[in-house]
Amino acid sequence: MSSSHDQAHSGLFHLLPLGLRVQSKLEALIDTHMQSIGASKASLSSITTEALWRQSGRYTANSEFLRLKDRRESGFLLSPTHEEEITALVAGMVHSYKDLPLRLYQTGRKYRDEKRPRGGLLRAKESMMKDLYTFDSTPAAALETYDSVRRAYAAIFDALKLPYLVAAADSGNMGGKLSHEYHFASPKGEDTVWSCKECDYVANEEVIYMPPTARGLDAETCVFEGISTDRKMRIQILGPRTAGRTEAWENISHYVNMDAVKSHLAQHHPGVELDTTIETEELVHIIESAKTPQITLSDSFLSLSTIPPSHDCPNCPTGEIAPQRAIEIAHTFHLGTRYSDPLGALVALPDGKTRVSMEMGCHGIGISRLVGAIASLLADEKGLNWPRVVAPYEAIILTSPQVADGEAEEVYDILRSGSGEGEEFVDVVLDDRPDKNLGWKLRDADLIGYPVLLVLGRGWRERREVEVQCRRLGVKQDVSVGQLREFVGEILEKL
Amino acid sequence: MSSSHDQAHSGLFHLLPLGLRVQSKLEALIDTHMQSIGASKASLSSITTEALWRQSGRYTANSEFLRLKDRRESGFLLSPTHEEEITALVAGMVHSYKDLPLRLYQTGRKYRDEKRPRGGLLRAKESMMKDLYTFDSTPAAALETYDSVRRAYAAIFDALKLPYLVAAADSGNMGGKLSHEYHFASPKGEDTVWSCKECDYVANEEVIYMPPTARGLDAETCVFEGISTDRKMRIQILGPRTAGRTEAWENISHYVNMDAVKSHLAQHHPGVELDTTIETEELVHIIESAKTPQITLSDSFLSLSTIPPSHDCPNCPTGEIAPQRAIEIAHTFHLGTRYSDPLGALVALPDGKTRVSMEMGCHGIGISRLVGAIASLLADEKGLNWPRVVAPYEAIILTSPQVADGEAEEVYDILRSGSGEGEEFVDVVLDDRPDKNLGWKLRDADLIGYPVLLVLGRGWRERREVEVQCRRLGVKQDVSVGQLREFVGEILEKL
Repeated sequence: MSSSHDQAHSGLFHLLPLGLRVQSKLEALIDTHMQSIGASKASLSSITTEALWRQSGRYTANSEFLRLKDRRESGFLLSPTHEEEITALVAGMVHSYKDLPLRLYQTGRKYRDEKRPRGGLLRAKESMMKDLYTFDSTPAAALETYDSVRRAYAAIFDALKLPYLVAAADSGNMGGKLSHEYHFASPKGEDTVWSCKECDYVANEEVIYMPPTARGLDAETCVFEGISTDRKMRIQILGPRTAGRTEAWENISHYVNMDAVKSHLAQHHPGVELDTTIETEELVHIIESAKTPQITLSDSFLSLSTIPPSHDCPNCPTGEIAPQRAIEIAHTFHLGTRYSDPLGALVALPDGKTRVSMEMGCHGIGISRLVGAIASLLADEKGLNWPRVVAPYEAIILTSPQVADGEAEEVYDILRSGSGEGEEFVDVVLDDRPDKNLGWKLRDADLIGYPVLLVLGRGWRERREVEVQCRRLGVKQDVSVGQLREFVGEILEKL
Repeated sequence: MSSSHDQAHSGLFHLLPLGLRVQSKLEALIDTHMQSIGASKASLSSITTEALWRQSGRYTANSEFLRLKDRRESGFLLSPTHEEEITALVAGMVHSYKDLPLRLYQTGRKYRDEKRPRGGLLRAKESMMKDLYTFDSTPAAALETYDSVRRAYAAIFDALKLPYLVAAADSGNMGGKLSHEYHFASPKGEDTVWSCKECDYVANEEVIYMPPTARGLDAETCVFEGISTDRKMRIQILGPRTAGRTEAWENISHYVNMDAVKSHLAQHHPGVELDTTIETEELVHIIESAKTPQITLSDSFLSLSTIPPSHDCPNCPTGEIAPQRAIEIAHTFHLGTRYSDPLGALVALPDGKTRVSMEMGCHGIGISRLVGAIASLLADEKGLNWPRVVAPYEAIILTSPQVADGEAEEVYDILRSGSGEGEEFVDVVLDDRPDKNLGWKLRDADLIGYPVLLVLGRGWRERREVEVQCRRLGVKQDVSVGQLREFVGEILEKL
């Protein structure tokens, strides 16, 4: 069991008090920047109806829905996302361009029946999201909104003081055409982001145009068989790679560019599953042809090969793009009228006669995923390491049992309370558990990942000096009480 | 649509920004008093497993569960409450009496497939609860914990400055023997609380001992037929009230004390449903006998009559108890080892050898229900009326379009920022929407229910006086800028 969360069941987690403090600090950071763009916070129900999702056209047999029925046998879903509900809500409240722009967000739980819950908080059945929905009366205003959301997101991720990537991305099944993903580069990531070494081009693999490459293939053997996640289409991939046997999905995905396949199947749901026991209505053959290096999908062609390890940048004349694994932590989408059209979310324009569908955007930050990603990025062999802005506490005071009563409280008060104008106090906690020795407390504090450790040990007893430790910056220094605030403040500025 | 919440589907609600502010203020009030008794805040998953509820013995065919299955066909429930999960979690973390007392709470969503979602937030499929779970090593320590929780609850409800009742209550299917309910007296309530006019006796109808009263009944006709909520037992109530026909549940419950029936059926689930289409294993006849005034239930007797409108107090020699309808807003339970026994939550005692089941308590506050109850208690024909401590804002400044730019901000700054030592600022908001007139703004502010309205109208333009309105106290007075802080502060003290 970690000290911040506990896996209760496959893909389901309990947040323990320290983990909840991290999550709450991240929520507070997000709240600040959502308020800066005039977004109001609401809280939508976690349960939605099949009927509403039918109206938007997104109700499918998608096996990632968690479905339930009430005693009247009405069909409900645990909401994986809230475009339908927020659009229906706003359609009932807002009728004039005068009430726009409207920006509503929430932080709440989302549900998804993951095929393979894994990576702890990175991919779970239940996760915490910040989702912002924006409503404008014209496409131009919606794009201004989109830009202001991107600036707010930059401010949020800048505050974490961790490097992140912003990649042009595919809109998948969200609808709309303009979309960006925010990533942490990480070998644990499930996405591949390509970036140019010479210009600022960054893109998710799924949107990069790659001219097909000749690969000298000949035979046509079924190497993969699965179904689309709406369970309507059977997919067989034919290719020469392995003669005579069907390969496991894990093997196929190493050399077949499934993003290209998904993109071509987007009229269904852009997911592919392994289940071959389901009866489907359609059968699609994706064929890797030997004569042309392209792949035949019905009448269209696409490259089934994964992108080669290095390639000319599509954005500058001399650069090459290279891939890195990445964890997606946030996504911005310009939706246009994808949801306002079917759900009738209309406003009257200034002429008083014309009514148009609102131009929408949706903008998510995976809160629990971000907590998990930060944890995995900064962890070392001793434990976690939190950036200051989301640390459960910015600093912890650890005392040896020989320290007299009241002395640790003196240090606590010095750090906690602001002593001068505009000076910020440190969010500090005191570990004075009498039944634990200093070594145990140090290991526990390192494991939890407080940014700064303040040790009252021998140096304190002999010279009233506090040993200040910061594992991330490699700091370990005795500091006199008089300089403690300034010293700790300077360290925290860097974290 | 109200301005604070919106019914999305039957029994499911979205909280709009002002409603969320009310809920967040209530949560902050609760947080303060939970911290005062050393309780740490956690956040448990909303999804639990059938398997865990089988282990505690609470998994039944109870039709109030909202059930779901994942892609592996594993059985899950949307948690109606979290005793099972918290006990399993603590069983894995805590092994010694030294780690106790432990007090963990959360504010989160609970799920229940209500037979009749009604009363808006009062009875919904999805609701927000504060639930505190306490763990002690001895029964005596657990009772001390119970008392400290009761003091914290008193502080929370005192802060609302609304009269409430604390009634001795039945533990229902929660297990344990010591239990109190917190109620607001309200004709909209679904509970009946009896209190003595002379002593401090207050009790829920379900725990009052009422000697059976003779009613001169003779015939034995089936007046009600239903099933227990675990769908295992068919229940027929036989009585003489209506010859020859089965009555509707609504009629029966007026004169049959169903609490007594439920209490006797507690080995099943203490709920009764109307569904008679289900095949059940057992048939129970509850018979109102003419010869004796008692009711025969298998071999035991109970009174089926509702308590008469006035009755001798069981607690004092001369008092009489009288009923009033009430809304239950909170509940404290001493659970003992009801959950720690089956789920193996044990701690070692100081002797180092003995291991005992932890003594538990669980203590809930219905947050969304409390918001709904406060709203219904204080609403009048003009709109809502919030107690200061949970109001979305304590005061609102309303301006007429003729007020010059910057003048409202001047009043806002005077009220908002604390001007002296220890002086509290007012949580004030400014309505300076240019396209609305003062009358519209006043009606809107009354509807939303801000405790204090500050009107910058003619008085402001002519004499720089603010009209201060408080509908709940009947205040409407022009106040000079210099006296505004003190005047508003005094009003807010009373709300």
